[in-house]
Amino acid sequence: MLATRTLLSKQTLTAVSHQPTCFVHQGEYGYWGNTKVAVFSGCGWWDGSDVHEGATMYHLSRNGARFRTFAPNQQQMHVMDHMKKQPSTGENRNMMIESARFIHGQGKRQMQDLSTLDVNSFDAVIFPGGHGIVKNSTFMKDGKDCKLHNDVERVLKEFHRSRKPILASMAPVLACRVLPSIEVTMGYERDENTRWGNWPQTNMVQAVKGMGARHVVREPYEAYVDEKNKVVSTPSFMWETDYHYHYIFDGVGNMVKHVMRLSS
Amino acid sequence: MLATRTLLSKQTLTAVSHQPTCFVHQGEYGYWGNTKVAVFSGCGWWDGSDVHEGATMYHLSRNGARFRTFAPNQQQMHVMDHMKKQPSTGENRNMMIESARFIHGQGKRQMQDLSTLDVNSFDAVIFPGGHGIVKNSTFMKDGKDCKLHNDVERVLKEFHRSRKPILASMAPVLACRVLPSIEVTMGYERDENTRWGNWPQTNMVQAVKGMGARHVVREPYEAYVDEKNKVVSTPSFMWETDYHYHYIFDGVGNMVKHVMRLSS
Repeated sequence: MLATRTLLSKQTLTAVSHQPTCFVHQGEYGYWGNTKVAVFSGCGWWDGSDVHEGATMYHLSRNGARFRTFAPNQQQMHVMDHMKKQPSTGENRNMMIESARFIHGQGKRQMQDLSTLDVNSFDAVIFPGGHGIVKNSTFMKDGKDCKLHNDVERVLKEFHRSRKPILASMAPVLACRVLPSIEVTMGYERDENTRWGNWPQTNMVQAVKGMGARHVVREPYEAYVDEKNKVVSTPSFMWETDYHYHYIFDGVGNMVKHVMRLSS
Repeated sequence: MLATRTLLSKQTLTAVSHQPTCFVHQGEYGYWGNTKVAVFSGCGWWDGSDVHEGATMYHLSRNGARFRTFAPNQQQMHVMDHMKKQPSTGENRNMMIESARFIHGQGKRQMQDLSTLDVNSFDAVIFPGGHGIVKNSTFMKDGKDCKLHNDVERVLKEFHRSRKPILASMAPVLACRVLPSIEVTMGYERDENTRWGNWPQTNMVQAVKGMGARHVVREPYEAYVDEKNKVVSTPSFMWETDYHYHYIFDGVGNMVKHVMRLSS
């Protein structure tokens, strides 16, 4: 291969950026493979998989973590038509199968049933979130008194009991329901400072306060850490933006950096 | 808001990274809004939307581009079960509706029908690709003599004729079919140097050579520019990797940086 690349040296000049440390597998927080992270998928932006799940995998990869993905092996609450912004009729989809599209998984890296997630096999768990995870609890009907999916509740409690980090973006709602008096951010508490984006879900902030959590205001590109409970959160798509996706990616990135620190 | 943040200064210390240039909208290659990019969605990893479409939007956002997303308003060739790695039976999905899940679009930023894409409204076009775009041509049946979706062929020819950049990852196959003798990369030509990933699709390289294109070997994190034709390509998921997603994201990032340069 080296010979091939030498022959191609003239074309190489046209690439903007070459990484001289090609294939040196050291993340920012240690060598690749030190930290094992379970990612809960099947959340999506109302349903299916969403871009912030991709952001999570990107930052885990960038920071040198190993990860496995899990989703509930059951039907979604409903399937959304994202052109009409409303549920479509007559469709059923399975959360685990829909989530598998993103993962490109083969063998051990294949999407796995959430019921098989064993806390002893991982150093941390991430709930990238999205309304999907909230919808597949009873939050839409019962609000702050909602009942969670059995395995979601089990996983949250087991990681908390084991003093292992729990990371969540939209999912703080569920963490707040299960873990008493934690501190989280879901962004702003009022729809203000809206030049580059909006905060249309501030009612969710009231919901987590109603569950006994303390809410902390953060920007979309920030993460907040409840050091005592090892719960890390970022606003993610609580912020709606036209073109500033990268702030949301940065927030997820800061969240992932914390898991590397808290797991070390 | 400022007052609120001052009160929260103690909690602020727990964030790993704060961006002091908060909400200063200057991408790496110029002020936000200088470059208008059309993104062709509806490709996916076999079907639907895929994580590299998210990577494209992230890098466009990071580099200060405006973008709109387009997809064909028609049924997918088939729906994939990504757990079984085979088509599922009895399902039909529309490419435009499935792609809209990712976009979080409202108003002008809503997903649009590809047939409405006007070359005069954009400085560049990106085909993030994925097998989906190939499958929805006749490539699987006809190989190098495949027939493209009418609007895909029209868009490629119009941007090329207007000397506007065309960016593609998996989609070089289609660009090579329409544009004569272009230069592209699809990664390696043999499945070698496989410690951190594999190149299982090298037959596609033979296909583009058969179409008259010149293939240039590149790593997953690189992009290659055919300066004469203004065609930029990156291997993307031609490389299969367990944990090194970030190399693929970096390749997309380098591709996007080139569009900012070529459009300026």
